[in-house]
Amino acid sequence: MGLTDEQRGEIAAERGESRSTRRVTVPALEEILYEALPVLDHGFVRVVDYMGDDGAVVQAARVSYGRGTRRVSEDRGLINYLMRHRHTTPFEMCEIKYHVKLPIFVARQWIRHRTANVNEYSARYSILDNEFYIPAPEHLAAQASTNRQGRGAVLEGEAARHVLGLLRDDAERAYADYSEMLNVDEAGAPRDPSWPGLARELARMNLSLNFYTQWYWKTNLHNLMHFLSLRADAHAQYEIRAYAEAMLGTLERWVPMTHAAFLEYRMNAATISAAGLRVIRRLLAGEAVDRQSSGLSPREWRELMAVIGRDA
Amino acid sequence: MGLTDEQRGEIAAERGESRSTRRVTVPALEEILYEALPVLDHGFVRVVDYMGDDGAVVQAARVSYGRGTRRVSEDRGLINYLMRHRHTTPFEMCEIKYHVKLPIFVARQWIRHRTANVNEYSARYSILDNEFYIPAPEHLAAQASTNRQGRGAVLEGEAARHVLGLLRDDAERAYADYSEMLNVDEAGAPRDPSWPGLARELARMNLSLNFYTQWYWKTNLHNLMHFLSLRADAHAQYEIRAYAEAMLGTLERWVPMTHAAFLEYRMNAATISAAGLRVIRRLLAGEAVDRQSSGLSPREWRELMAVIGRDA
Amino acid sequence: MGLTDEQRGEIAAERGESRSTRRVTVPALEEILYEALPVLDHGFVRVVDYMGDDGAVVQAARVSYGRGTRRVSEDRGLINYLMRHRHTTPFEMCEIKYHVKLPIFVARQWIRHRTANVNEYSARYSILDNEFYIPAPEHLAAQASTNRQGRGAVLEGEAARHVLGLLRDDAERAYADYSEMLNVDEAGAPRDPSWPGLARELARMNLSLNFYTQWYWKTNLHNLMHFLSLRADAHAQYEIRAYAEAMLGTLERWVPMTHAAFLEYRMNAATISAAGLRVIRRLLAGEAVDRQSSGLSPREWRELMAVIGRDA
Amino acid sequence: MGLTDEQRGEIAAERGESRSTRRVTVPALEEILYEALPVLDHGFVRVVDYMGDDGAVVQAARVSYGRGTRRVSEDRGLINYLMRHRHTTPFEMCEIKYHVKLPIFVARQWIRHRTANVNEYSARYSILDNEFYIPAPEHLAAQASTNRQGRGAVLEGEAARHVLGLLRDDAERAYADYSEMLNVDEAGAPRDPSWPGLARELARMNLSLNFYTQWYWKTNLHNLMHFLSLRADAHAQYEIRAYAEAMLGTLERWVPMTHAAFLEYRMNAATISAAGLRVIRRLLAGEAVDRQSSGLSPREWRELMAVIGRDA
Repeated sequence: MGLTDEQRGEIAAERGESRSTRRVTVPALEEILYEALPVLDHGFVRVVDYMGDDGAVVQAARVSYGRGTRRVSEDRGLINYLMRHRHTTPFEMCEIKYHVKLPIFVARQWIRHRTANVNEYSARYSILDNEFYIPAPEHLAAQASTNRQGRGAVLEGEAARHVLGLLRDDAERAYADYSEMLNVDEAGAPRDPSWPGLARELARMNLSLNFYTQWYWKTNLHNLMHFLSLRADAHAQYEIRAYAEAMLGTLERWVPMTHAAFLEYRMNAATISAAGLRVIRRLLAGEAVDRQSSGLSPREWRELMAVIGRDA
Repeated sequence: MGLTDEQRGEIAAERGESRSTRRVTVPALEEILYEALPVLDHGFVRVVDYMGDDGAVVQAARVSYGRGTRRVSEDRGLINYLMRHRHTTPFEMCEIKYHVKLPIFVARQWIRHRTANVNEYSARYSILDNEFYIPAPEHLAAQASTNRQGRGAVLEGEAARHVLGLLRDDAERAYADYSEMLNVDEAGAPRDPSWPGLARELARMNLSLNFYTQWYWKTNLHNLMHFLSLRADAHAQYEIRAYAEAMLGTLERWVPMTHAAFLEYRMNAATISAAGLRVIRRLLAGEAVDRQSSGLSPREWRELMAVIGRDA
Repeated sequence: MGLTDEQRGEIAAERGESRSTRRVTVPALEEILYEALPVLDHGFVRVVDYMGDDGAVVQAARVSYGRGTRRVSEDRGLINYLMRHRHTTPFEMCEIKYHVKLPIFVARQWIRHRTANVNEYSARYSILDNEFYIPAPEHLAAQASTNRQGRGAVLEGEAARHVLGLLRDDAERAYADYSEMLNVDEAGAPRDPSWPGLARELARMNLSLNFYTQWYWKTNLHNLMHFLSLRADAHAQYEIRAYAEAMLGTLERWVPMTHAAFLEYRMNAATISAAGLRVIRRLLAGEAVDRQSSGLSPREWRELMAVIGRDA
Repeated sequence: MGLTDEQRGEIAAERGESRSTRRVTVPALEEILYEALPVLDHGFVRVVDYMGDDGAVVQAARVSYGRGTRRVSEDRGLINYLMRHRHTTPFEMCEIKYHVKLPIFVARQWIRHRTANVNEYSARYSILDNEFYIPAPEHLAAQASTNRQGRGAVLEGEAARHVLGLLRDDAERAYADYSEMLNVDEAGAPRDPSWPGLARELARMNLSLNFYTQWYWKTNLHNLMHFLSLRADAHAQYEIRAYAEAMLGTLERWVPMTHAAFLEYRMNAATISAAGLRVIRRLLAGEAVDRQSSGLSPREWRELMAVIGRDA
């Protein structure tokens, strides 16, 4: 993950402290608090703060004076009901804050989720580290032939070696020239003391999109689930999905009832169009239905058949 | 504040618990956590959860691995700098959640602040209590003559008694008829067991805007300060200002450095227009400047003179 | 709708003008531009401005230099695809602005949709008209017995007359006392010239929640559809649904392809949970499935059976 | 600006059309509608749609049935009042949509403004053009010595030539290798027909941050002014300021009264802290005040002296 000893020390110091609070706590999440969960070759996600738990969702839905929780089964039933009927506001009452280290091209997708708070490391103000993403061999894939924004077969042999070489060489050259323009050596000291180097806000433009940046990212539970529903989805680009999957694990620790409802009613659910529902009704009535008579496009037909477990 | 014994009990139970956490805590805020701070005749504000402290602002501004704090004077300087230059994103890294009981006409002003999370008690689902706001004598004011949306002199004597009587009688009648339409008695039991009463979602429309509602309201530190800068301002209607002032007190307990910077650079600062700055420069150069030669409207002139401590 | 002659004149004047523009126009929407479409007993919705059309959605999805449209069938296919896969950002590129007159209790539900721009008539600044909502006989319903936030049977006979009488009497008294406190007569002139009346910002609290207010409300096409999906739904309270249905008509005029896709993939579609999908697969495989073996709650089972057209 | 003939043709076709509308129009903005206003070496900003004008601000503030405008001087006075007192909601009633071509590092700053709608050209789906930003000689500056995020002296002679050479060579190599990995030649045709090339979503990571991207960006007038107040400011990085300045020109064409008020009460105004106001009052009272007795930090003192036109 490329943590320096100093960074590891700071994290350990934070993990070592224990304070007393009247607030709700979640022991399973406290266990991994501040810990850097590795993602990709140099990235990580770490939970640095949180507010609320499953009970806070229940409390808000009931606008109650105390914890608002009753029996576990009632709370679970209420959370399932809220998720099923898209009553989203009670889930907004919980908040979580992550520290994330991620390649810039991933950050560019991620930032499109507007309903979050973000503080990014500034390359106008500071010098970026020499860390860039190179795909692991099993993630180096050719362009898909059927889907303009997807991946096809994994590259192998010479083709793979050649691509990896280009990516690595170009990133290394970009960083070497970035340092030269900034007039700093590897230790961050001036190379030529007679001039200050190019302005950092200009030099940064020489870095490529696989360089790592980092940010604090804070969002509420509802918006986090919206993010995960898009980014942990099979259609998301692998590199951002890797982050979303690590975050799904933190969701399960934090709010286990909400996590279960999210899987049941969102991630593993399917939305079926009006025409799709008509197909299902006809099939259940024993009719033979084919694509032509369904009114569905070929792609919609394939998707529907997959959802209901039939061959297209 | 109209808390029932059961509600007091629930609050006391929450205040009585203590848990251990690795998260940042703020002892001065923990002291009043869950406590109902009285506002107006039956309302309250109570902090029910929070996340972060002054250090979290500093940590986000520095995108640091640990707490990010250095010496107290450096942290204070950084917070002042961020406030002064309107670098707002680090303040978004702290979050607070309130439970508020407030008259509906105040709720209508409050809800216009869109960047918050809200769960309101539902009068579609439940029956509202018989609690309504009646201004204290010193807040019962005549319409201002110079400002269409302000208050003039306090009402006294017979005029005051008459107005208070109308407000009280109408609210009592509204509630009595609400209960009658709902077919419930004071204990909430059916009056006439032969019918279910009017739908709650319809009956509620008979209540007037001074009835109390309640909600959970959660926002980040930046948006809280924006809310307070408008609602704790002298131009805000007294009734919402009363809430804002109680919340200013919680801000001071929570993030004392940010609170001080907020007073210095926002609440007690003044924005002076281009023409106003020209007036100040001319005055400092020893010129006699009058309204006519200033280019300012009479109202702007009065406001400027007030800000720089001169008679208009 | 309670429009005064002056208001009708202003609307007619706006409708009478024609200007030339290089922007995209939508003749079917221009036809009803500025027109007040009646809703409830005194309310209305009128479209007062718009930006973009179906082609603007296509243009944004393609980030094209010109209109971006190709053949009609390709545009329709792209819009269907975007709707189906919840690619929401191209729909954000169209904007619409309404002027709405609505009861305050409806406004309180409506305003919970935060992603819109709103300017509401200020009862702090101005005096509200004497207009309040009284349900039509067919909408005066008893509390539902099975659903805490729903309506049951329509009230009839004496019960209906009694409730309508209470609603009407209380609203009339509230307004009469509001006017008396404001010290204005029916023409808006002072009754007693010796005092200015109670401050408007205080007097308004005497009005009940069925009084009409009005606002300008502007939102983008994506957020409009989100609003309509919740408020034109059968579970929405009738009074806000009446507005949503009038607005659905304006959606159809404005962006007919998007409107059709919205009905097909949102309003008339169904989201089926993971367990629900397993039930469908088992049924299609010829298995007899009952509620107990399905893992669904009784309510979920009923909802699923309704969706797939089977008796519960 | 790197427009192809096809793109120029599409723009000319849009500019050539004229339609009739009942909506408000702004002839001065229509004049430049769709036109690409050049920014930096290959970028542009073009207004592609708008909704509302100065009158729409007035109309919303008055919640009027017709245009709501009275005499020009009254409208100007109201707009000034709204701007001065930060009554922001009426400005949200106007909307504008731009098509922008900009370097990725500028896009990364820009996107931090969350309250806008964006559709960006997708390098997951399509291949980016070979266009990258190289600063003009007068904008190639050394790192500032006093301000960590600013520019110092302009680079000249050999140093400038060397830096420009590195920037250009690295960008050219990055693009050449991008094309090679994608397996496309300059005309976009496959080089080696035996394989599909690396997935586009991976190859893009080899491009550096000075490559151009493009997007549709839509926002309301209030948020536009917020963007401009930060990005047309002298502290903004030159490259994004160049866009903001072009957009200021479109603001002036679109809403001239609002533009004038924005300059007077925002861009050319100053916010003075509580301590700063005390200094001004003491100076006006004829006192000699120095930095030590002012309570201001050296930097605040310098800033205050600059604002009031005194030597620090």
